[in-house]
Amino acid sequence: MTTYGHGGDVNGFAQRCGCAPEEVVDLSSNINFITPSVDFSSVPLNAYPTYERLTEALAEYYRVNPDEMELFNGGSSAIFSLLRFFDNPTCTIYSPAYLEYRKASHLYGKKIALIDRFEAMDTEVEENSLVIFVNPSTPDGHYYEIDVLIEKWSAKNCTILIDESFLEFCGGESATRYLQTYDKLYVLKSQTKFYGCAGIRVGIILSTRDNIRALREKEPLWKISALDSHFLITALADEPFRILSHEQNRQAKEYLAVILGSSPLFEQVFESDANFFLVHLASMSATEFQEKLLPHRIMVRDCSNFDFLDERYVRIAVKDIKSLMRFEGALCSLR
Amino acid sequence: MTTYGHGGDVNGFAQRCGCAPEEVVDLSSNINFITPSVDFSSVPLNAYPTYERLTEALAEYYRVNPDEMELFNGGSSAIFSLLRFFDNPTCTIYSPAYLEYRKASHLYGKKIALIDRFEAMDTEVEENSLVIFVNPSTPDGHYYEIDVLIEKWSAKNCTILIDESFLEFCGGESATRYLQTYDKLYVLKSQTKFYGCAGIRVGIILSTRDNIRALREKEPLWKISALDSHFLITALADEPFRILSHEQNRQAKEYLAVILGSSPLFEQVFESDANFFLVHLASMSATEFQEKLLPHRIMVRDCSNFDFLDERYVRIAVKDIKSLMRFEGALCSLR
Repeated sequence: MTTYGHGGDVNGFAQRCGCAPEEVVDLSSNINFITPSVDFSSVPLNAYPTYERLTEALAEYYRVNPDEMELFNGGSSAIFSLLRFFDNPTCTIYSPAYLEYRKASHLYGKKIALIDRFEAMDTEVEENSLVIFVNPSTPDGHYYEIDVLIEKWSAKNCTILIDESFLEFCGGESATRYLQTYDKLYVLKSQTKFYGCAGIRVGIILSTRDNIRALREKEPLWKISALDSHFLITALADEPFRILSHEQNRQAKEYLAVILGSSPLFEQVFESDANFFLVHLASMSATEFQEKLLPHRIMVRDCSNFDFLDERYVRIAVKDIKSLMRFEGALCSLR
Repeated sequence: MTTYGHGGDVNGFAQRCGCAPEEVVDLSSNINFITPSVDFSSVPLNAYPTYERLTEALAEYYRVNPDEMELFNGGSSAIFSLLRFFDNPTCTIYSPAYLEYRKASHLYGKKIALIDRFEAMDTEVEENSLVIFVNPSTPDGHYYEIDVLIEKWSAKNCTILIDESFLEFCGGESATRYLQTYDKLYVLKSQTKFYGCAGIRVGIILSTRDNIRALREKEPLWKISALDSHFLITALADEPFRILSHEQNRQAKEYLAVILGSSPLFEQVFESDANFFLVHLASMSATEFQEKLLPHRIMVRDCSNFDFLDERYVRIAVKDIKSLMRFEGALCSLR
């Protein structure tokens, strides 16, 4: 049985369906379905890249100083570097969460403590531990007000990593506002999701000047492609894209919410502040659901490998209306 | 005093000269002066990249199997990952060499042993140490026949890393031919220099299947930009570029050799198998030489921060004939 670990293996799925990749509707990957259009013809490739312009653009966007930021070639690389950098013996992951956190914690020999976000948010965290909190969360897309949590974690002298990869979709407040008052805080940013650019490998860590200086000392040079840098500088300046993206995502999300809410296949549809929905299937497993969607060439994300989720959880991403109509048709035929 | 640590900070230099970056002749950076022309308009950015096609293209190019290779976002990132991966307590660097090796060795707590390539090639290496050998070397561009060295290192049970970033320029044999017979061998490849693409961040490690499997376990996902991947796949298939590049570099290198050989400013010009020359100034320091070239808007690489080199060493890269003519004119005016 093929599994779709991270979602988004469209080529492999198309092969299984015996169709072209373009015929697949991929609701498994929670990447924005629209992407800014960028021209690369003027990017000089024969010089080592410098990141001043990118750093300045990002600093302005996130309202921090350029020296309060380190760039990585993607969120996954940022997570690995950070987990290596932190010397806290225990890593507390509010779960379910992005699976790379477990992998990286394990790799760097940290004791892993999981806190169940659905059932046990009040669980005490271990003193001096590294706390990982994804906000909005994945795979359920819940935006948390974290004032009380930050207070609780800082009282325990924890190092805090807030992953805000999906924040742009809900317009929630960034944890960067605590950087002035708590110096063991790190915020992970990524443009991958909102700018629909998983092919662009840039992840960003925001923290205090001193923390960033220490982190940089352990990092190699020239981590980011000059092309990726150019893409992001252009995308961040593209205000019309942002407006269009918010509007199209709002409409498509409303439509998807109706589709999910009106289908008897789902026992529960989680409220979401992001561009995807977590659902609990009423009477079949995620694997069975995937098999039934295969003839329709539709991919969804089996969430059974997330902590605290059983085999009936599935994540379904907001995509363009036409794709969602195909999904709606497929659901009707499954009743 | 501004230093030009790695060569190639054209923008900073242009600012100092009070000119536009395009007016600078950069002989400090040993990147090929021609680059394949690649169109990026068809690259899909909204899916996570897969590297099957890139890996296959590189495997064919280097005549290895795809599972004998791991990709990194640039040579510098590959070096850092490897130095972290190896547990040899001592790192023996045949020097002068690329400075990132010292930085990474130091960072990962290895004892550093330097062997002077110019004066003491016969020095014994420590048993079980990690040996780093750049071939052709930098900053002097010498291609070494390494049969005897490989035998000597393997007799001492050393882990061996051969950096072949400049091999393409001289057509020398790759150390990959020893992978069948010695399993503690790693070969670093990079397309940056020959394909003139420092803005593209891809570095490649070739080793045995088992070594690569172990290395991969410690690596994050999606390290390379989809755009960079597309560039390399296209470039590797561009046979006309390779022919043109070899011919233009041959001509320009011959010209540069004549310029350097006929100038009384240089006491010694090292023979080179790569696209740059190391020279020893007769009666001034590299810094003085740089200052004198400043009004001519010409950058060269001060090599005094390389091990075993004094303040009179300078590296000068092969560039297009027009740029070299400007350099020739500048040298004449300095006599």
